[in-house]
Amino acid sequence: MFIVKSIDETIKIIKDNFDDYILRKMIIEVEDSLNYISACDILSLENVPHFDRSIVDGYAVDFNSVKLATNAAPSILKLNGEVLMGQEAKSIITSDSTVYVPTGGHLPKGANSVVMIENTDRLNDEIIVNKSVSIWENVLKMGSDISIGTNIISKNTLITPLVIGALKSIGIEEIEVYDFLSVSLISTGDEIVKNKQKLEIGEIRDINSFTVSNYLKNKNVIINDSVIINDNFKQYKEAVIRGFENSDIVIASGGSSVGDKDYTYDILKKLGADILVHGINIKPGKPTIIAKYNNKLFFGLPGQPTSAFFVLNTFINTIINTIYHIKNVMPIPYIEAILQINVHSVTGRRLYQLVKVEYNENNELIAIPLFAKSGMINALKEASGYIIINEFVEGYDALKTVKVYKLGD
Amino acid sequence: MFIVKSIDETIKIIKDNFDDYILRKMIIEVEDSLNYISACDILSLENVPHFDRSIVDGYAVDFNSVKLATNAAPSILKLNGEVLMGQEAKSIITSDSTVYVPTGGHLPKGANSVVMIENTDRLNDEIIVNKSVSIWENVLKMGSDISIGTNIISKNTLITPLVIGALKSIGIEEIEVYDFLSVSLISTGDEIVKNKQKLEIGEIRDINSFTVSNYLKNKNVIINDSVIINDNFKQYKEAVIRGFENSDIVIASGGSSVGDKDYTYDILKKLGADILVHGINIKPGKPTIIAKYNNKLFFGLPGQPTSAFFVLNTFINTIINTIYHIKNVMPIPYIEAILQINVHSVTGRRLYQLVKVEYNENNELIAIPLFAKSGMINALKEASGYIIINEFVEGYDALKTVKVYKLGD
Repeated sequence: MFIVKSIDETIKIIKDNFDDYILRKMIIEVEDSLNYISACDILSLENVPHFDRSIVDGYAVDFNSVKLATNAAPSILKLNGEVLMGQEAKSIITSDSTVYVPTGGHLPKGANSVVMIENTDRLNDEIIVNKSVSIWENVLKMGSDISIGTNIISKNTLITPLVIGALKSIGIEEIEVYDFLSVSLISTGDEIVKNKQKLEIGEIRDINSFTVSNYLKNKNVIINDSVIINDNFKQYKEAVIRGFENSDIVIASGGSSVGDKDYTYDILKKLGADILVHGINIKPGKPTIIAKYNNKLFFGLPGQPTSAFFVLNTFINTIINTIYHIKNVMPIPYIEAILQINVHSVTGRRLYQLVKVEYNENNELIAIPLFAKSGMINALKEASGYIIINEFVEGYDALKTVKVYKLGD
Repeated sequence: MFIVKSIDETIKIIKDNFDDYILRKMIIEVEDSLNYISACDILSLENVPHFDRSIVDGYAVDFNSVKLATNAAPSILKLNGEVLMGQEAKSIITSDSTVYVPTGGHLPKGANSVVMIENTDRLNDEIIVNKSVSIWENVLKMGSDISIGTNIISKNTLITPLVIGALKSIGIEEIEVYDFLSVSLISTGDEIVKNKQKLEIGEIRDINSFTVSNYLKNKNVIINDSVIINDNFKQYKEAVIRGFENSDIVIASGGSSVGDKDYTYDILKKLGADILVHGINIKPGKPTIIAKYNNKLFFGLPGQPTSAFFVLNTFINTIINTIYHIKNVMPIPYIEAILQINVHSVTGRRLYQLVKVEYNENNELIAIPLFAKSGMINALKEASGYIIINEFVEGYDALKTVKVYKLGD
């Protein structure tokens, strides 16, 4: 019998039980670190910029020397050459001299502002300044982007393209990260066959190992191995043990319900695993098992492809974020669309309803529910996303504006 | 001088000018096809399931033989064995016999319904049926998920984990796809250095090639080469020509404005490229160039890392979808959060404002604008996402609920 848990209870159980993984650390090139999770804090040892820079094309000045400048009564300065990009300024600015500085160029000694070229005129070697500037105007001061000691990345943070840019900007070449999580996949069922040319009556091609493994690839989870096991207690048990030897997480599909040949529960019991969840209040996807074995997570998905996919989609982000201790996680983004037909639900059970989103003739986004018997892959692959009808309502009426979440986010 | 185009005009120009790319096709294993774009339609040559299946554990019957069954007056049938999972049913159902069928098992000849085991009792070799069933109740008919001739994937469609599952369910092993798009990257600027241990005054480490290349990696775009070029007309021109020889798209950062050493425009003119956009009404990011050369796209980004990143983020999806002819593209999803301080904007120019999103003490999502001078990588890498203030308003007040888009989506 199931002792059914709510989705929120299940999320709490995952958070409470899987934050003590022993993660493999490694040092890799920053250039190769995209989508890894940092295993260290990095503080900057450099200033960015590491010199005062002009942020406009113009003339470097001591702001005092042009503080009265107007169109009617301009200040006149002697032009003393120019600063070249990528090079240290050679001249020193005095109260009656200036130097041309391009955007990004080094602000010379003695200068503390830059007059934009648009606010000047040039007459031979004289620069006529028509507008005053305030101190440090048009200057990006040394260290104002990143100063020495600035935290560039904290431990347990996703390394994004922008983080890589920030690390490279301060000359960091290597970073300690956690290795990607690895998974051993098991598909169970006497009827399941894989890569077979011609099916016999009674046989079904494996779907789950392909949908699950490719879904996980997009989450940067490594699939170590993927096997099909008959409904055979001994073989299945051995596959589970091997999976835990090989990988951080074991994910099995099928066998997680309470029928005669649903061995998952009994195998986990026999192995002495701690069964944390057996049955979740989610439609589709009720027969789900979550267990802890040797401090690792076992995730038993329903055999039906749609159900397996939804359960994975619902809990995998929590699993990954918990294992890596990722904080400040954003909710899943959505788009809004107009529901086209009524969707009925049952109070007390959260429903995930697949929808196809498209534009109607008025260029409004509409959401068309895709109804299909449990496990139908064809409807699933048409879906743009899903809507969630929570436990406390009986459904949504047509023309309601609903939030559509993208599958896989 | 810029002839500034709006963002919407720019998007239309991309759509109108880059839908005639000559794409490289190749045939790959379905197992390796994740995130590729299909170059063919695939229709199913098989039914899924390819036999009538029970969707419950129960007894296969001719519905006529139990149509009067109730608790008070049950129908009694002779049990004639069981169907094994993965095997063809051996028995034939008659009006007074039944066979046990597990969930997913083959429905025997003569049967057209399955009575759930919960609605039966067993007495030796007799099954006592307490409830009637309708015709085809609890049966998933042959081809009801996918029938022969069903379109599984259309040309120019993203291959998702679910599409792979659907293709494998009908025994498809190979698929024709378009090769991933490739990019040659050019960073320009006399002050830019890469992988240098110690900077001289005036030098700045390259950021754009790392942020841009890693951003594109997450979009499954291949970086063929990435070079740094001084502000030298000849070298830059040669780099552009080489880029077009090597790759589908050339992306350059820097040199796209209208200053002395901004050579991008002149080089494209000299090469005879068709300059479609020079200057976009977007903040940050105005000095952007889009050109067509040899039927390929040149994308000239501003030199400032923040600006370059925003421009890329704003237009790359349109570029990719246009080149691959991907239809029915969803808008970018968002989350809603409460803006914490006023954000001012200028009417007539669309503003992209970085924000950091977090939960406050009341567990509400709040959006904190990150203000920074143009090009500051440190603020950028802290951002959870951005808000868009369109051309027609002067800004948003604090406490307004705003839509926050994730960077990179």
